[in-house]
Amino acid sequence: MRIVAALGGNALARRGQEISAQVQRANLAEAARALAPLVRDHELTITHGNGPQVGLLLLESEADPSVAPYPLDVLGAESEGMVGYLLEQALRNELPDARFATLLTQTAVDAEDPAFAAPSKPVGPLYNAATARRLERERGFVVRADTGGWRRVVPSPEPLRILQRDAIELLAAAGVTVIAAGGGGVPVVLDAAGRPRGVEGVIDKDLTAALLAENLDAELLLLLTDVDAVYRDFDTPAACALPALTASEADELLASGQLDAGSMAPKVDAAARFARAGGTAIVSSLERVGEALGGAAGTRVSS
Amino acid sequence: MRIVAALGGNALARRGQEISAQVQRANLAEAARALAPLVRDHELTITHGNGPQVGLLLLESEADPSVAPYPLDVLGAESEGMVGYLLEQALRNELPDARFATLLTQTAVDAEDPAFAAPSKPVGPLYNAATARRLERERGFVVRADTGGWRRVVPSPEPLRILQRDAIELLAAAGVTVIAAGGGGVPVVLDAAGRPRGVEGVIDKDLTAALLAENLDAELLLLLTDVDAVYRDFDTPAACALPALTASEADELLASGQLDAGSMAPKVDAAARFARAGGTAIVSSLERVGEALGGAAGTRVSS
Repeated sequence: MRIVAALGGNALARRGQEISAQVQRANLAEAARALAPLVRDHELTITHGNGPQVGLLLLESEADPSVAPYPLDVLGAESEGMVGYLLEQALRNELPDARFATLLTQTAVDAEDPAFAAPSKPVGPLYNAATARRLERERGFVVRADTGGWRRVVPSPEPLRILQRDAIELLAAAGVTVIAAGGGGVPVVLDAAGRPRGVEGVIDKDLTAALLAENLDAELLLLLTDVDAVYRDFDTPAACALPALTASEADELLASGQLDAGSMAPKVDAAARFARAGGTAIVSSLERVGEALGGAAGTRVSS
Repeated sequence: MRIVAALGGNALARRGQEISAQVQRANLAEAARALAPLVRDHELTITHGNGPQVGLLLLESEADPSVAPYPLDVLGAESEGMVGYLLEQALRNELPDARFATLLTQTAVDAEDPAFAAPSKPVGPLYNAATARRLERERGFVVRADTGGWRRVVPSPEPLRILQRDAIELLAAAGVTVIAAGGGGVPVVLDAAGRPRGVEGVIDKDLTAALLAENLDAELLLLLTDVDAVYRDFDTPAACALPALTASEADELLASGQLDAGSMAPKVDAAARFARAGGTAIVSSLERVGEALGGAAGTRVSS
């Protein structure tokens, strides 16, 4: 079966953990053990989050007095290098005889995407009011009040086209387990001739995963996180795991506003999109992915 | 014709230029213009240097008080992300209809390589004596006196095997212009079962380029730099460009010690290795690569 799996950020560093190489190596060793049976038995393509990693690289670049701060697209590419390397190496340690490749990915977005007029995704550190004002003035940052200070927010446009789609397909069809579209891919806009230019923004990695699954004609999209299923009334006494949803039910749940905008909502959105395109999506914890494949865990979304 | 081209660091930032994203974009736009005819007319695979980029990321990581400093292998992977992205995007801007892919590369080295007992390659900033002593003690760095202070030196082992060779071959054979083995690839050692582990070191990118050219059965290895040819008595009044060398003549020139160890020597070494393996190598400036292909510039090395 051809499967696209999207690894949540918790596979790299759990909440509160330091984003060191050592922590990520240890967590990814566990993630690789959970993914190994899928690599063995299926045609797997893997994508992953990169939020905390880009945050770290951004902080370090901004703090460097020797060079102009790097733009987000380049930092995103650096994080694809960092995470892709660590993840591929962890997988090679589980399965030294399997074939793996990590492809740097650019994802085209629409220059007219309404997200550019309404930046919403927080990136980088908390600033005090004076620094926030200065960054607005000097760097053109858009900042928003956040718990305990101010944070920069950037646009999160819709992924439209994965520029390296052909290469990913070629490798996947040849039996190579591909790591691609890390962090949703670096967002680029194309001019009339198709020439790409990086933009300041971040693409939701789950939405790119749904697009990639569609592009690859995958049967299954796995959205892996640290929660074992989609819940109705999550974090309340009435919390109730949902073993199956239709795309319409998923849309209703999204519209109800009870899903966390930063984590579960984009997963359910991605699942509903892929279900409407004719596939099946499963939201599951990474630990229970084997049970989820067999129908004994997770939330299955289909048309 | 199948060609492997190795881009020198000057294609990214010239001596004395700041290693900013903007500077690298401008230089890579020029490099992409020079490479575009090769992409159009040949089957091209490209590799590139990453020394100053790793240096920058190392400096920034070391200066970050929030997280343990990243090891060189991960920083190398980040630099493959940064440079690979910028280079692929520059090429896509020249040839929006061609197919490109950037593959993160790990290169196996021998854990018993004598280079591990004799670190030689300077990385990172200049330290004063007190800091150098502290880093020796606390971090196990090997430091050497350098102009104006002390620098860390790391091993530069021989590249033995490119782990992503299959994937590179598959894509190249399908007509995709592949960017791979940036910075020589991240050095890893394999255990008895073939499980890779990153090591603290840097591989010479020209030597990996020669290995890649051999692996891909390329006809031609292009070693591109900012000097238009190999010279006898370079930088002296008797300087004399050498239009052609046999592998043995190249070895003699290397043994004479007159080639710069940090730039021309590894190119001539790589060229001689590839020539002995049956191919042809050309050392040329990037600007004159077209003339060099026609035999009107550069130094051609063949068996």
